[in-house]
Amino acid sequence: MKSPCFLKLKNLHMHNHKDDLRYKDIWIDTNQELVIYMPESCHVCKSEGFQALTRVEVWFKKKSIIAALNITQDGLLGDGEVALSLSAKKKLNVQNGDLLNVKHAEPLQSIAYIRAKLYGNALDQTAYDEIIRDIVDEKYSNVFITAFLAACSGHNMSLEEICYLTRAMINVGNKIAWDKEIIADKHCIGGLPGNRTTMIVVPIIASLNIPIPKTSSRAITSPAGTADTMEVLTNVTLDIAALHAIVAKENGCIAWGGAVKLSPADDIIIRIERALDIDSEGQMIASILSKKIAAGSTHCVIDIPVGSTAKVRNMESAKQLAAQMEAVAKYVGLKIRILFSDGNQPVGEGIGPSLEARDVLKVLRNDSDAPQDLKNRALVLASTIVQLTLGKSELEANMLVASQLENGAAYNKLLAICEAQGGFKEPKQANLSEKITAGNEGIVTKIDNRKVARLAKLAGAPDTPEAGLDFKVKLGQTIKAGDELFTIYAGSKGELNYAMEYFKTNQGQIIQIN
Amino acid sequence: MKSPCFLKLKNLHMHNHKDDLRYKDIWIDTNQELVIYMPESCHVCKSEGFQALTRVEVWFKKKSIIAALNITQDGLLGDGEVALSLSAKKKLNVQNGDLLNVKHAEPLQSIAYIRAKLYGNALDQTAYDEIIRDIVDEKYSNVFITAFLAACSGHNMSLEEICYLTRAMINVGNKIAWDKEIIADKHCIGGLPGNRTTMIVVPIIASLNIPIPKTSSRAITSPAGTADTMEVLTNVTLDIAALHAIVAKENGCIAWGGAVKLSPADDIIIRIERALDIDSEGQMIASILSKKIAAGSTHCVIDIPVGSTAKVRNMESAKQLAAQMEAVAKYVGLKIRILFSDGNQPVGEGIGPSLEARDVLKVLRNDSDAPQDLKNRALVLASTIVQLTLGKSELEANMLVASQLENGAAYNKLLAICEAQGGFKEPKQANLSEKITAGNEGIVTKIDNRKVARLAKLAGAPDTPEAGLDFKVKLGQTIKAGDELFTIYAGSKGELNYAMEYFKTNQGQIIQIN
Repeated sequence: MKSPCFLKLKNLHMHNHKDDLRYKDIWIDTNQELVIYMPESCHVCKSEGFQALTRVEVWFKKKSIIAALNITQDGLLGDGEVALSLSAKKKLNVQNGDLLNVKHAEPLQSIAYIRAKLYGNALDQTAYDEIIRDIVDEKYSNVFITAFLAACSGHNMSLEEICYLTRAMINVGNKIAWDKEIIADKHCIGGLPGNRTTMIVVPIIASLNIPIPKTSSRAITSPAGTADTMEVLTNVTLDIAALHAIVAKENGCIAWGGAVKLSPADDIIIRIERALDIDSEGQMIASILSKKIAAGSTHCVIDIPVGSTAKVRNMESAKQLAAQMEAVAKYVGLKIRILFSDGNQPVGEGIGPSLEARDVLKVLRNDSDAPQDLKNRALVLASTIVQLTLGKSELEANMLVASQLENGAAYNKLLAICEAQGGFKEPKQANLSEKITAGNEGIVTKIDNRKVARLAKLAGAPDTPEAGLDFKVKLGQTIKAGDELFTIYAGSKGELNYAMEYFKTNQGQIIQIN
Repeated sequence: MKSPCFLKLKNLHMHNHKDDLRYKDIWIDTNQELVIYMPESCHVCKSEGFQALTRVEVWFKKKSIIAALNITQDGLLGDGEVALSLSAKKKLNVQNGDLLNVKHAEPLQSIAYIRAKLYGNALDQTAYDEIIRDIVDEKYSNVFITAFLAACSGHNMSLEEICYLTRAMINVGNKIAWDKEIIADKHCIGGLPGNRTTMIVVPIIASLNIPIPKTSSRAITSPAGTADTMEVLTNVTLDIAALHAIVAKENGCIAWGGAVKLSPADDIIIRIERALDIDSEGQMIASILSKKIAAGSTHCVIDIPVGSTAKVRNMESAKQLAAQMEAVAKYVGLKIRILFSDGNQPVGEGIGPSLEARDVLKVLRNDSDAPQDLKNRALVLASTIVQLTLGKSELEANMLVASQLENGAAYNKLLAICEAQGGFKEPKQANLSEKITAGNEGIVTKIDNRKVARLAKLAGAPDTPEAGLDFKVKLGQTIKAGDELFTIYAGSKGELNYAMEYFKTNQGQIIQIN
C-alpha cells in the first residue's frame, strides 16, 4: 500500500470510479492508428458496452484522443489496466501507472458526408474540409479512412471534388512562406528505378538564380527516394529555418520533406492507401498538388513516366491524369507544365542510394561514361522549368540549361548546396557484389521495373545505401552470351543471398532477351 | 544453451534463415482480424520490405494463414520473435517457442472485383462467390472488408447483386437439413427493446404441429437478445444433433444461433459493419436471408418495426426494403411474408433478459397483468405464419393461434421445449432497484428506444440477466406527477449508479412528457 497508484487502484474497485484505469506499456505500433487495449474482464468495457473497434475517447490530464478499441484476453492486462498503441501513448504522453479515463466517443459528423458520398452524392468544400480536419485530428480509425478512400476511389470524384479535396488538404497543413515571386519545383509520378533527375535539375535551376527549394521523400516501396540518395552526399534533415537560410544563399536545396511535415493529412491517408492498393486518382492529385502549395511552390514541372510496369500504364490514362492535374493546379493557383516520358525501363545505371548518387555526379561532372538517358531527362525537365518560370523559348531554354551543365556551374552549385546543408562527401561502394551475365544472345525486349526494384531492395537498398544494382542494359540492346546484365551490390552476405535467390526464381521476368 | 528454441534462434542469426521466427504470446484480441506482430528491428521485416498493414502469409507445420502486420517497438518482442492475435494463434494452433515462417502473401484476385465495383461496375455471381469465399477463408484484413462494405453500401447494389451476394453467403455456410416439407421461421429487423415475441410465437406454432426450429442471437448492442432471454428459462447452447432431437419431439426449439454457425461470412463482416456504422441494405438483406436458408427454413414471417428511433425510420424505406427482400427471397427459394409494425416505443414492460422472460410467461400463462402489446404482436406474427404455412384465412388463423394461447397449449409447449432443452427454471428478480417517477403531469409524447436500451445496458443487462428496466408507460398515456415511469433493476450498487447517472443527464430525452 505504499504506492499512490495502488491506493488509487484499490479505490477504484471499492468506489466503482468507472473511468479510472491504470496505463501499462505493451509497445505495439499500429502504424499510427490510435488504439486502446482493454482486457475483456474490464468493468468499464462491460458497463459501457464497448466492443472491439468501438471508438473510445481516452482522457489524460485534460488532453484526449479518440482511439479504436482492441480487447485483450486476460494475461496481458488485468482488470483496471489499459494499454495504448505507441502513437496514442505519445499523443497523450502517458507513462506506466498513470490513470486514464475512457468513455464512448461522440459520433463524428463528417462520417455523414462519407455516407452521402457512398450514396452517390457529390460533396462540397465544407464537407471535404471537415473530413480532412477530422483525419488530421486523428479522429478516424482505419475503417473510416478506408471507407473515405473507397468512396473517393476510381472515377467517383468529380473534377470539382478533386479541387475541394486538394484545397482541404492545403488548409490543414503548414505553408512555407518564401517571400519571392517565383518558387520552382518538379515532381515525378510513380518513380522509375534510378530516375534521380532532381539532383541534377535543382543545381542547374539554382545556378540560374531561379529559387528551387526542393523537398523530397524517402523510399517508401522503392529502393531509393531522392532524400535517401541526396543523403549519400550530405545531410537532408533540415528544419524550415535552415531551408530558408540555405535557399537565401544558394537559391536551392534538396531536403527530406518528412522533416517539414508538409501534408499531415496525406501522411495519415497514404498508409491505408498503400495497404488497400485501390487507386484513387483524386487522392493522388490532391496529395501531390497540396504538397506543392504547402512547399510554397509557384511553378512546377511534372513528369509522368508511361509504361506497362510504371504507375501510369498507357498514354490514355496519362492524358486524362494530366488534364485533371492542370485543372486542379489552376484552382489552387499553381502554374504547372506536364511532360510524358518513357516509363518502360530504369533510368541511368545505378539503382540504390549510393549507386544513383554516383550516376548523378557522373552527369554533373560531364564524365564520359555518364548515363545519357539520365542526363537527357534532367535537361528536358530543367529546360521546361526555365520555359515555365522565365518565359524563354524551348530552344533558348535548352541551350541555357545545357551550358550550365557543361560549364560546371551546375556541379559547383550542387557542391555549394551540399556544403550549405552540412558538407559534401563522396559515395562509397559496397564490399560484396555478384555480376549477372547473359546466358544466351538476343535483344532486350522487356524490363520489369517492379521486379528490378524488388531485387535492389532485397540486396539491402535503401537501408544499406551502398546496396542495389548497377544495371547495364537498355531496351533494344543486342546482347551476347556472357555479357554483363547487371551487378548486385550488398552490404552483407545474407542480403546478397536473398537477392540471388530472388533473381534465380524470377530470372526470365526481370529482363527478357529474345 | 539447453533449450532447443534458443539453439534454433542462434542458428537463425548465424545462417540467416530468414523466415524462422519464434512465436511468443502477447494475448491481443483484435476482434477476429488475423494480425501478426513483428518487432521493427526484425531482419525479416526489413529484408522483405514489410510495412505495417502488409498482408503476410504465416506458416506453421504445413498450415498457413494470411495476417495483417502490426510492427512493435523493441521491448515487447525481440529480433527473431513474432506474436499473433488470439484468433490467428488459435487458427495456427501455435504455442510459445514454436517456429514460424513468414512471407509476402500473394495478392488476392477477388480484390479486383471490389476495385471494379468501386469503379461503378455491377458484379456477377462468380465475383460475389470469390469475395465471400476469401472473406470466410480469412484472407481479407479489415481494410479490405471495409472497402467491400463501402463498395456495397447505400444504393450501390442492384437487386440482382443482392441476390448474388445472398447466394454467395449461403454457398459458404452449412445448411441444416430437416427432412420436412415446411420449416417455419420468423425474423424481426432491428430489435425494439422488450420485443420478445419469438418466445410466444414458437410455442404457439409448435403446438399446432408446424415445425419451427428457431435459432436466435444474443444481444450485440441491445440489452437482451432472444437467446439471452430464453437462457433465463433454460439452456440454449445446442448442437445440430440436439436441435434435431428436440424438434423431432416438440416441433420447435429456441436455440442460440451462434453455437450453430449458420453464416460464417456474416459473422466476419458484421463486426466491421458495426464499427463502420454505414448502412448497406444489400448486406443486411443478404445477411438475414442467407441465415434463414442455412437454418433450413422454408417459410418465414418478417416483422419490420417502423419508427424514428427504430432501425427503419419511415414507411417509404420500409416498403422499399420489403420489396427487395421479397425479390431476393424468391431468388433463393424462401417463402416470406412481411409485416410492418409500430417501432416508436418499447414492447411489453420488461427490458433485460429476466424481466422480458417474466413478460413472456405472463402472456403464455394468461395473467391478467400480461402486457397486451407484446401479446398482440405475437398473435399477429403467429397468425401470419399459420396463414403462410397452412394456407388458412386470416380469420381462421387468428382464431387458431388465439385459442392455442388461451387454452394453455402454447404455455405447455414452452415448458416442454424448455424440458427438452435441459429443464425449465423461473426467472429471478434483481436485489437492487430504483423507482423513477414523473416530476410533472402531462402526456407521453416520445420515447427514445436507443436511450432506453442504453439505460438498461448500463444497469447491467444482459450480462446480469436480472438487470434492466420495468417500463410502465406508453405513448399517449396521461401521467400525473409522482406516477411511476419505470424501475431500474441492477445486480450491483455500482451498476445502479451508472444507470442513475445516465438517467439524470438524459432525463428529458428518454421519455418526453408534454
